[in-house]
Amino acid sequence: MAPHAASAERVAFIGLGHMGGPMAANLVKAGHVVTAFDLSEAALAKAAEAGAIAAPSALAAVEGASVVMSMLPASRHVEALYLGEGGLLARLPAGTLVIDCSTIAPASAQRVAEAAAARGVAMLDAPVSGGTAGAAAGTLTFIVGGEPSALDRARPLLAAMGRHVFHLGGAGAGQVAKLCNNMALGVIMAVTGEALALGASHGLDPRALSAMMAVSTGRSWATEVCNPWPGVKPEAPASRGYAGGFGNDLMLKDLGLAIEAALQVGAAVPLGELARNLYALNRLAGRGGLDFSSVQQLVAGPAGG
Amino acid sequence: MAPHAASAERVAFIGLGHMGGPMAANLVKAGHVVTAFDLSEAALAKAAEAGAIAAPSALAAVEGASVVMSMLPASRHVEALYLGEGGLLARLPAGTLVIDCSTIAPASAQRVAEAAAARGVAMLDAPVSGGTAGAAAGTLTFIVGGEPSALDRARPLLAAMGRHVFHLGGAGAGQVAKLCNNMALGVIMAVTGEALALGASHGLDPRALSAMMAVSTGRSWATEVCNPWPGVKPEAPASRGYAGGFGNDLMLKDLGLAIEAALQVGAAVPLGELARNLYALNRLAGRGGLDFSSVQQLVAGPAGG
Amino acid sequence: MAPHAASAERVAFIGLGHMGGPMAANLVKAGHVVTAFDLSEAALAKAAEAGAIAAPSALAAVEGASVVMSMLPASRHVEALYLGEGGLLARLPAGTLVIDCSTIAPASAQRVAEAAAARGVAMLDAPVSGGTAGAAAGTLTFIVGGEPSALDRARPLLAAMGRHVFHLGGAGAGQVAKLCNNMALGVIMAVTGEALALGASHGLDPRALSAMMAVSTGRSWATEVCNPWPGVKPEAPASRGYAGGFGNDLMLKDLGLAIEAALQVGAAVPLGELARNLYALNRLAGRGGLDFSSVQQLVAGPAGG
Amino acid sequence: MAPHAASAERVAFIGLGHMGGPMAANLVKAGHVVTAFDLSEAALAKAAEAGAIAAPSALAAVEGASVVMSMLPASRHVEALYLGEGGLLARLPAGTLVIDCSTIAPASAQRVAEAAAARGVAMLDAPVSGGTAGAAAGTLTFIVGGEPSALDRARPLLAAMGRHVFHLGGAGAGQVAKLCNNMALGVIMAVTGEALALGASHGLDPRALSAMMAVSTGRSWATEVCNPWPGVKPEAPASRGYAGGFGNDLMLKDLGLAIEAALQVGAAVPLGELARNLYALNRLAGRGGLDFSSVQQLVAGPAGG
Repeated sequence: MAPHAASAERVAFIGLGHMGGPMAANLVKAGHVVTAFDLSEAALAKAAEAGAIAAPSALAAVEGASVVMSMLPASRHVEALYLGEGGLLARLPAGTLVIDCSTIAPASAQRVAEAAAARGVAMLDAPVSGGTAGAAAGTLTFIVGGEPSALDRARPLLAAMGRHVFHLGGAGAGQVAKLCNNMALGVIMAVTGEALALGASHGLDPRALSAMMAVSTGRSWATEVCNPWPGVKPEAPASRGYAGGFGNDLMLKDLGLAIEAALQVGAAVPLGELARNLYALNRLAGRGGLDFSSVQQLVAGPAGG
Repeated sequence: MAPHAASAERVAFIGLGHMGGPMAANLVKAGHVVTAFDLSEAALAKAAEAGAIAAPSALAAVEGASVVMSMLPASRHVEALYLGEGGLLARLPAGTLVIDCSTIAPASAQRVAEAAAARGVAMLDAPVSGGTAGAAAGTLTFIVGGEPSALDRARPLLAAMGRHVFHLGGAGAGQVAKLCNNMALGVIMAVTGEALALGASHGLDPRALSAMMAVSTGRSWATEVCNPWPGVKPEAPASRGYAGGFGNDLMLKDLGLAIEAALQVGAAVPLGELARNLYALNRLAGRGGLDFSSVQQLVAGPAGG
Repeated sequence: MAPHAASAERVAFIGLGHMGGPMAANLVKAGHVVTAFDLSEAALAKAAEAGAIAAPSALAAVEGASVVMSMLPASRHVEALYLGEGGLLARLPAGTLVIDCSTIAPASAQRVAEAAAARGVAMLDAPVSGGTAGAAAGTLTFIVGGEPSALDRARPLLAAMGRHVFHLGGAGAGQVAKLCNNMALGVIMAVTGEALALGASHGLDPRALSAMMAVSTGRSWATEVCNPWPGVKPEAPASRGYAGGFGNDLMLKDLGLAIEAALQVGAAVPLGELARNLYALNRLAGRGGLDFSSVQQLVAGPAGG
Repeated sequence: MAPHAASAERVAFIGLGHMGGPMAANLVKAGHVVTAFDLSEAALAKAAEAGAIAAPSALAAVEGASVVMSMLPASRHVEALYLGEGGLLARLPAGTLVIDCSTIAPASAQRVAEAAAARGVAMLDAPVSGGTAGAAAGTLTFIVGGEPSALDRARPLLAAMGRHVFHLGGAGAGQVAKLCNNMALGVIMAVTGEALALGASHGLDPRALSAMMAVSTGRSWATEVCNPWPGVKPEAPASRGYAGGFGNDLMLKDLGLAIEAALQVGAAVPLGELARNLYALNRLAGRGGLDFSSVQQLVAGPAGG
């Protein structure tokens, strides 16, 4: 039995997948009462094992909750959960805090936040970085948009699941910032693949090249941690057939959201849009389910990478 | 008067610009006898003040030298210096060591190395990173291609001018690796500019966005050190009107060399080639002489960046 | 007084701008009774001069109409006109034919078509090509999506305003096809600009180069008609300071819609997306209001183009 | 026996491949005495059957020739044929006319032209368009750089092999123009593939879409003649498994030469460089030997195209 937190909130947690499941478990460990729901019975059972109370529906889960958290795949799921006649916002009492950790379109986040505000419900968009490992270890980074007062209230909960919190601005700002980071990441991974393939095709050893770049101006998470060339970093997805990690199609989704955000304001993001196409081509080549660093194989061809 | 190094070489140093000048001075400080030459009399006079012996020509400078170093702007200068009937290689005795620190086409480096080998002269291509600050402080990184034995002999000299040495392979490998790093750098800087402009156009503060990205998966030298958005990093060129730093046209040159190296082997470098075009457009927009991080203004427009 | 058409429809025409105005006038000329509305009183007055009946509102205009046509700037205007409680669809009797000639998102066109179908109203998306000259001359091309029976009924009206009709498929297919064409056009114009600038920078005369390309495999509407290099085609916008023609920002809008359509299905459109960014950069450089062929100045720099 | 032409030249023809062979045969048909050479004995035998005199070497072929023509794969072959101590230019008498029809780097063409001029030999670079079908039918287009007087002398010969002659300027201008055209063509083909794939993924019939585009502003040789979608044009390579036509790797080579020409003058050719990468990716995907319109399969994925 976990100790009760001093200022324990009653949390409803909707969406118990690879990210949401461990996050909910960490809330339980920190002493919060968590009522959970997921369409998957297996996910729900696993959350119950971890100490959450399994609810038969999202509506049942939020009954009596002071905070509602959600971790869902895409904008349409988040809008469906909260908006409309059957949506949660129509049932939540004023004063409830909603924290959505999904990565979705900023415009969607803003739509939900507006609807929430109209009912006296505070809303934070709080997408995360750190992956499934960070979710399990409770070392996620939260990238937050919304009112400072709502964030202050959320901090103890976020602290149970993560290590860093960045506040970027009002509603949707967390989503925008996450997309900016991931757009940069998608480009950096692909150009690192280009650089390693170019070096290899001139006879260089990708390990030596990576070692040099990792301490030079071309350094990045792609050279140092998730190196896309097989064998350079034994613990990277590239060294186990690009299994696990952050899927190509998830990067493709995030880049698509970034492009949408750019279209919305007419921004020029030429490298970001080209990278989206590279991941789309990587998917067409049959690598949609592999780690996104498998874009290495797109630019190096079957012989390399 | 500087102390004499135990195994002092007689060094001829050709090319005393913003990089070569301080490098030669550091060799003198370490106790080496340095005979120097540059077409600019001012540069030559400055080297003499630092303790080098000014020579009236490149040919005169290499008279009696056991090691010849060069730091020149482009492939054609290096080929002109070493090759042909009037070139240095026709005059150097077997056993001389040549270290070219210029950033040039790998194919050029290989041509000179082959001609050197044919005369019993060992050749290293050893382009550097670290900029003018690193040259002055003696903290450069050398990215080396050539025979291991030649590199062993060069190490005491390189140690007088820099801190790190990476050996990437045979003749030209240093150039290839430098170009791979700088291609990645050019792309990373531009996509960082895109990300900051996208965030700003959605109302985010580029400082907050940069702070988040700098500790996330989108991190890079561009977010942490040479941030392209004015005011984010007070010591970065962006915060002083993009003055100083690494010029747009130098990045354009290096990306051009990277593309040439890609054309040579038929490699796919889509992001690298797009970045070359962005720096070319930045030049056409009148920012060729500014720091390469001024590509921020290309993607953000006059209002931003 | 115009002659009455045999099978004259009572047409309501909403949106009397540079395209809609002349289109409505051509309907009148062909003997149709046209009731027209536009938010601009000047536009409305001009339509009245041409023989249309000016209505005080869109709702008033459709009173008694058997066919409703619209020509509006963007998706949101079309959705606002037809959908929702105050929208036209809530008032139109079953059996009415709606023809929307605006260029909008296929998804928007499909939303309106679905809402129309639910009320027994037939809907065609029928974006046009041919520009303001084609609208005035009655020589437009209609690119149509929707039911064949609805198109059959629409043909006499379309014949009064244009010369060619292409039927591409069901609801939204006209929009998709128009965007495919304009995406190709945007890319073709920009690469023609690149080719002419490359030739010119090697000393070639863009007129001679254009003349050759216009009868070779690189030929296109951009080499033959709307050549982007000033002076090559006297009647092209490039030869009058890029005034008139099809604005950069309209091309930017269409490319944005094409990218949205690509994001919707996960399609790879690398050249299309890069072109969108070139027109976005051209806008940032201050040429948003000029003809889209002014992208020539982006790739040629101030000296060229 | 062919009739003798009034002003018959004695022509040496070097390079009797798929293009050069039929070109030489057409010269014979027009009454010229043609001495031919190729490294392939089969090609040489075929030329002899067509009425040419087979020579045992290039040097033997030019013995007594007033005009030397060449049709070779790449810059290095052309430079090797003409330059250096064993090259043809060292043997040709002043007054000889050299016509090189190879597609090579403009800088190479200029090097050979300069060496020729130094010996009183006139040189034309005259790359062709029209493919093997045009070579056989004698309907090629010649894209010429060099002195007008040299072109005047060449015209009767060119007329025997082709239908159109474009004079673009001095030495190398023919090569530059050919590369400009082919850069545009490579981009146009790929974006047409993008447009057809985008339309198809929204349910449109590529035949209907192509028919519309072929008479609209997005029209090109790619929509009208060499349509990249299988089945749209029965006679196009796409309709026979992308066999025959203009190979992907030849387009890749031409785009590489165009990029080199752009690097030489610092030109911005963003779409051209991206297209080069698409054809490089298409080669890495195993389609290097197919017609270049097989880039359709890169952007449409295995299901489409």
